[in-house]
Amino acid sequence: MMNRKILLHSRPQGLPTEDTFKFEEAPIQEPEEGQVLVKSIYLSVDPYMRGRMNDSKSYVPPYPLGEVITGGVVGEVIESRSDQFSKGDKVLGMLGWQLYNVADADKLQQVDENIAPLSAYLSVIGMTGLTAYFGLMDIGRPKAGETVVVSGAAGAVGSIVGQIAKIQGAHVVGIAGSDEKTDWLTKELGFDAAINYKTTPNMKEALEKACPNGVDIYFDNVGGDISDAVMTQLNDYARIPLCGAISSYNQEEGSDVGPRILTKLIKTRSMIKGFVLGDYADRLPEGAKMLGQWLAEGKLRYEETILEGFDRVPEAFLELFQGTNIGKMLVKVESTE
Amino acid sequence: MMNRKILLHSRPQGLPTEDTFKFEEAPIQEPEEGQVLVKSIYLSVDPYMRGRMNDSKSYVPPYPLGEVITGGVVGEVIESRSDQFSKGDKVLGMLGWQLYNVADADKLQQVDENIAPLSAYLSVIGMTGLTAYFGLMDIGRPKAGETVVVSGAAGAVGSIVGQIAKIQGAHVVGIAGSDEKTDWLTKELGFDAAINYKTTPNMKEALEKACPNGVDIYFDNVGGDISDAVMTQLNDYARIPLCGAISSYNQEEGSDVGPRILTKLIKTRSMIKGFVLGDYADRLPEGAKMLGQWLAEGKLRYEETILEGFDRVPEAFLELFQGTNIGKMLVKVESTE
Repeated sequence: MMNRKILLHSRPQGLPTEDTFKFEEAPIQEPEEGQVLVKSIYLSVDPYMRGRMNDSKSYVPPYPLGEVITGGVVGEVIESRSDQFSKGDKVLGMLGWQLYNVADADKLQQVDENIAPLSAYLSVIGMTGLTAYFGLMDIGRPKAGETVVVSGAAGAVGSIVGQIAKIQGAHVVGIAGSDEKTDWLTKELGFDAAINYKTTPNMKEALEKACPNGVDIYFDNVGGDISDAVMTQLNDYARIPLCGAISSYNQEEGSDVGPRILTKLIKTRSMIKGFVLGDYADRLPEGAKMLGQWLAEGKLRYEETILEGFDRVPEAFLELFQGTNIGKMLVKVESTE
Repeated sequence: MMNRKILLHSRPQGLPTEDTFKFEEAPIQEPEEGQVLVKSIYLSVDPYMRGRMNDSKSYVPPYPLGEVITGGVVGEVIESRSDQFSKGDKVLGMLGWQLYNVADADKLQQVDENIAPLSAYLSVIGMTGLTAYFGLMDIGRPKAGETVVVSGAAGAVGSIVGQIAKIQGAHVVGIAGSDEKTDWLTKELGFDAAINYKTTPNMKEALEKACPNGVDIYFDNVGGDISDAVMTQLNDYARIPLCGAISSYNQEEGSDVGPRILTKLIKTRSMIKGFVLGDYADRLPEGAKMLGQWLAEGKLRYEETILEGFDRVPEAFLELFQGTNIGKMLVKVESTE
């Protein structure tokens, strides 16, 4: 029985290509004392990983060339040399894109299929749901009656942001890239309005119409032209949690130009803050509790786009940048057939 | 005895011109019950006033066309119909650019020449000093050993920002537009380094050299290219109090383009916040107390550029955008000769 892994083969210029990734086979390693062997069930692919493929300073170090790419993984313990886990336990961890991971037990978290489906630990009650929760609640701080705009609204983070904002009593407007997505936002998730930026000739006008009282919170996942348009609609004391800028992840650093926003921020005394989930490491239980509670109460819906088969990990990752997914993009390692 | 006033005659496109202002003579009004008549001694000219000359939404309403321009004024009560003030009292208020103002007594604040020179109530212990204090201390939150960069560093706000940052134990770098200014910053005010942006071919390199440990706080008074360069040097969790963007005040809204900064803000989890002094209305006594204390202890130095003669108000205002002033720009209504 061999392990299969996906290595970072070359650093992409622009969009990752076939040459970016390399599949490799190797013997499965044996866990040492305090470690377990985990068989991958779901692998998470996320836009932030694109940044780690560059050799540049950021909040996480770059992926080393020639080594296995890492990310969120849910799997099953198939061999344990730790008191913390038994064979058959399901666990969540930051592990490699490979069929089998040897992991330190104390870096894994047990997950329970009876509370939520395994995939949810990588989506609504996992990293993306928690990112939505803390960015919106801690930086955005929505108040009832305020207007919240979210870009990348049909994505794993955006779709949860909008629903939490609705729970807080806000007027919620989503921006997404297809009619299927905008329909889902308004008809299924309860967004007050949604704008398909790909078919909207004038985003500024569309935003004015969808946000008659201006924008109090802009939860930004995309950057670029879309953010430029939203910035024109800021109310006084607007708050802008900066979660992502997927529009620029495949661009060379510094090559991205647009309207300068500082004057607008002064005039409106607005606040922009970049954040990552790691900034809230000490508050994760609070976020997990609230998300779990809203989920149980039926206030929070979530969608997952799941590709099946380990071979499809690169394809799933690339689709993030084509915007084909609704909700969280995941790979199920074994096909269901 | 006639009053003389300066009206907003037309809304400027770009830099204000002769046609922007109109001098007018009119009889001096009589104060009513609860009012006083104030003879102007010092008039404040400030960059933010340029914004009020546009007919656009901001944190203060636009100056109405054909009416007297208003701003900070220190003057002497020459007639009182209020219990609050006696003839001869010196007062500070938001009053008109005119020789004589009739003002509601409860909108004026008494000032004391024995504590500080009258002009200081419009500079170091007035609006600009307080703006420096709250922007730096509340948004910037400097810690000892951190690096603070301030643009417009030789101006009324910037020169105080840098000195307060030094008091907090920071490494302080100023950006200004002449060697005279940078010399003043390093030799007189104790800045650790200062960069003359007009003679520096590569601002990014100059900042790298002046800030070997990166930038933790960027107190921004100018926007534009200078801010673009500083943004490339941000450390993780940098804070950027946005006080002004004088480089764009004379530009058409939305015409100002530059590198997009959102990706950098995410990577560094940095925070930008626009603010005005009015946001701190309930904390003004705290700021005044600290500034007064540092001044008394000799820890805070300040400079004023004072033009003499009421006719020179437009000239003083325009010089703000030419960057000729060191420290606070003021007009003394009566020439000393």
